[in-house]
Amino acid sequence: MGRDVVKPKGARGTRDFLPDQMIRRQMVINTIKTVFETYGYEPLETPAIENLEVLTGKYGDDEKLIYKIMRRGLDANNLPPLHEMADLALRYDLTVPLCRVVAMYQHQLQLPFKRYQIQPVWRAERPQKGRYREFYQCDADAVGTASMLADAETLTLIHDVFRTLGFKQFRIRLNNRKILTGIAEYAGVDATKAMDVCIAIDKLDKIGMDGVIGELQKRGIAPTAINKIMPILEINGTNDQILNDVATLLENTPTGSQGVAETQELINYLQALGIPEANCGIDLYMARGLTYYTGPIYETIVEEPNIGSLAGGGRYDKLIGMFLGQDIPATGMALGIERIIDVMTELEMLPPAKTTVQVIVLPFNAEVQLEALHLIQELRTAGLNSEYYYNLNDKMGKKFKYAGNKGIPVGVVIGPDEIQQGTVGIKNLQTKQQETVSRTKMIAVIKNMLDRD
Amino acid sequence: MGRDVVKPKGARGTRDFLPDQMIRRQMVINTIKTVFETYGYEPLETPAIENLEVLTGKYGDDEKLIYKIMRRGLDANNLPPLHEMADLALRYDLTVPLCRVVAMYQHQLQLPFKRYQIQPVWRAERPQKGRYREFYQCDADAVGTASMLADAETLTLIHDVFRTLGFKQFRIRLNNRKILTGIAEYAGVDATKAMDVCIAIDKLDKIGMDGVIGELQKRGIAPTAINKIMPILEINGTNDQILNDVATLLENTPTGSQGVAETQELINYLQALGIPEANCGIDLYMARGLTYYTGPIYETIVEEPNIGSLAGGGRYDKLIGMFLGQDIPATGMALGIERIIDVMTELEMLPPAKTTVQVIVLPFNAEVQLEALHLIQELRTAGLNSEYYYNLNDKMGKKFKYAGNKGIPVGVVIGPDEIQQGTVGIKNLQTKQQETVSRTKMIAVIKNMLDRD
Repeated sequence: MGRDVVKPKGARGTRDFLPDQMIRRQMVINTIKTVFETYGYEPLETPAIENLEVLTGKYGDDEKLIYKIMRRGLDANNLPPLHEMADLALRYDLTVPLCRVVAMYQHQLQLPFKRYQIQPVWRAERPQKGRYREFYQCDADAVGTASMLADAETLTLIHDVFRTLGFKQFRIRLNNRKILTGIAEYAGVDATKAMDVCIAIDKLDKIGMDGVIGELQKRGIAPTAINKIMPILEINGTNDQILNDVATLLENTPTGSQGVAETQELINYLQALGIPEANCGIDLYMARGLTYYTGPIYETIVEEPNIGSLAGGGRYDKLIGMFLGQDIPATGMALGIERIIDVMTELEMLPPAKTTVQVIVLPFNAEVQLEALHLIQELRTAGLNSEYYYNLNDKMGKKFKYAGNKGIPVGVVIGPDEIQQGTVGIKNLQTKQQETVSRTKMIAVIKNMLDRD
Repeated sequence: MGRDVVKPKGARGTRDFLPDQMIRRQMVINTIKTVFETYGYEPLETPAIENLEVLTGKYGDDEKLIYKIMRRGLDANNLPPLHEMADLALRYDLTVPLCRVVAMYQHQLQLPFKRYQIQPVWRAERPQKGRYREFYQCDADAVGTASMLADAETLTLIHDVFRTLGFKQFRIRLNNRKILTGIAEYAGVDATKAMDVCIAIDKLDKIGMDGVIGELQKRGIAPTAINKIMPILEINGTNDQILNDVATLLENTPTGSQGVAETQELINYLQALGIPEANCGIDLYMARGLTYYTGPIYETIVEEPNIGSLAGGGRYDKLIGMFLGQDIPATGMALGIERIIDVMTELEMLPPAKTTVQVIVLPFNAEVQLEALHLIQELRTAGLNSEYYYNLNDKMGKKFKYAGNKGIPVGVVIGPDEIQQGTVGIKNLQTKQQETVSRTKMIAVIKNMLDRD
């Protein structure tokens, strides 16, 4: 091996997670997994690599962000056309792989299939603060049920995740694609233009009423239609009041009426599931971007701390049909887990822990080596995460400094005196207090010290 | 969206892990993580995507198995040469990313850096039974220490992992690259041919003494050298006896003598750490394939059940230097985790569990819907993984059948009678026994039922 030094650089838009970051990530992910499982969602993992044809035609314009993998064994002197150089691609999200799995294993899976999946996805985006080319997604979906109960449980799950993570106040904004379709129909907008209406009114929070009017005009919506749409965006009140008002307006649009009925059913279940109305309100202009939604849609705004949308989802009853030729209803949500981890770290919502190591064994000198090795195995057998200090000839001050810098909470010191007396020195590396205890009490004293912290 | 049905096929050589498989994988992985952490190893994750130049020149002939990612924005009409079409690649193992991380964060990491990493890697191999293109690796390494203590701890860790997983009998085969270099030197083989000697004698188990002689001849090793090498392969006895014999032979080869001294030190530590000699014996012809090892090398043969090598590793003091221009000593091991999971599944060494769901709530009819929703939230608040049966109008027999097929252990039945009496029906779905208990005792009865299983 030569000495051609390679510059050690990670790929742009990717991150290494060193132990202190891993500890925080695992804390958040484990909490979320636990909540997912209490709601009856089961774990699924799919490969990072998918056949390219599985991913194409699912993401609209964003398809260009899919990473493609070069075909093996290409002949440099006889290259095929560009579009034939790749037949594999990296997973772009977790929804399309789920649909593929449901289609592939339809005779093996019991429906409804409620699965969660927490895995990285890859997108060839321009990296910027908080936006990466490789990042984790965190999805929970229920496949094979058209029941609004599944949507109600999804919303309750979101509520429970944020509460369990320690977020104080958050609000789920709820709407229904069928209501939005009904609004377009009511306004006399052609069905092919319904998505344009959605996209325009979804911007209300950002650009205001006048902005939405301009956006609708720009998208070729007729003035008469705009005049019928705008008042709807001003409907407010309790969920029941909003539903009453919109029900009257949309009573002659079958799809709109169905959307109203779905939403009413959903609201009733949410009440029984204990979600206060303050945490889940109807926003008639909330539309979400993805084209594949067909029923309830929602996003979750965390208001305290005030950090915007951290979860979203909805019902997509037609997507699996793209693989199966036969529709299977499905509904689900995605948590913005990278954002959640960033925010919880910034706001110090996670207990500080720099290391998984709980105890470091610091032998006084080389003379006590073998006895110190016995000792560390005792600690490990007792389930304590224990590191051994290798350079026995270092001064004790240097040994303690290493342990302190690393953030290890407890040090165990053993020297010739301790061996003779059947004791060990146990040092709390935060308070710097050291006590000498009998070897037989060592485990209990350390466990007690760790519990106190 | 059209109705062009895409054939739902996973990429060749990749796997989907459905919930029942995920449960087993997570069980094994969590056990291993726990053992890793008791030995003071900390979690690390690196991205799947690496700059291609980070991976090239590290894997010898196997470099052709690296998956390359197509550069973005290539112009179909003006393509660059083939070797310029990719600048990113998929991680091939976890060792090279570790070396990159150590080189990149050298001023931030405290050495020794003991990290474990359990993540998928990708290799464009021809798939066959037990060999995949995407599979998990599971590594634990200690970087920044030349101490044989680190090697001894690695071996003890391997021992502890297999014991904790429930393997009854296994043997670590131990050798040292410096001893192998010493043997080549003692035999008068040129240093450039030392690796050929390693590769040939490593095959002893498979091809026998005569086979090794043929292999050495084929690789251009002189007959006089072969005559000096072959008797060494017959040295046996206790570790001390083997070391004594080989020490005498290699006393005039400085590298060989150093290898003997390292091995002696290692053996002493293993004794203190409680590893019986029966579990760790010197095999002078065990060489391992990777070129980058520089000191102790080892592999672990599981003998009961008899399934061959499931872990290997060694010291590689020069690899990080490829990124840093300055050597940092390192040692570590990899568990064959896919193999371990396969074997433990086949031999039924894992508790049977088809689902993470513990309880299913089966409302008798739609009349009790809202009360049943209250009830399931009680179960979830108590930490029980609970699924709600959505199709209330299904017959109870169908409901129980679904729950049984899914492998859910407990069913909770609630109907108008139960509501009136403040009770619920709790059914053990394995034994089919059902009891009616007061609602206040529900949680306790279910937890008790789950514990018994």
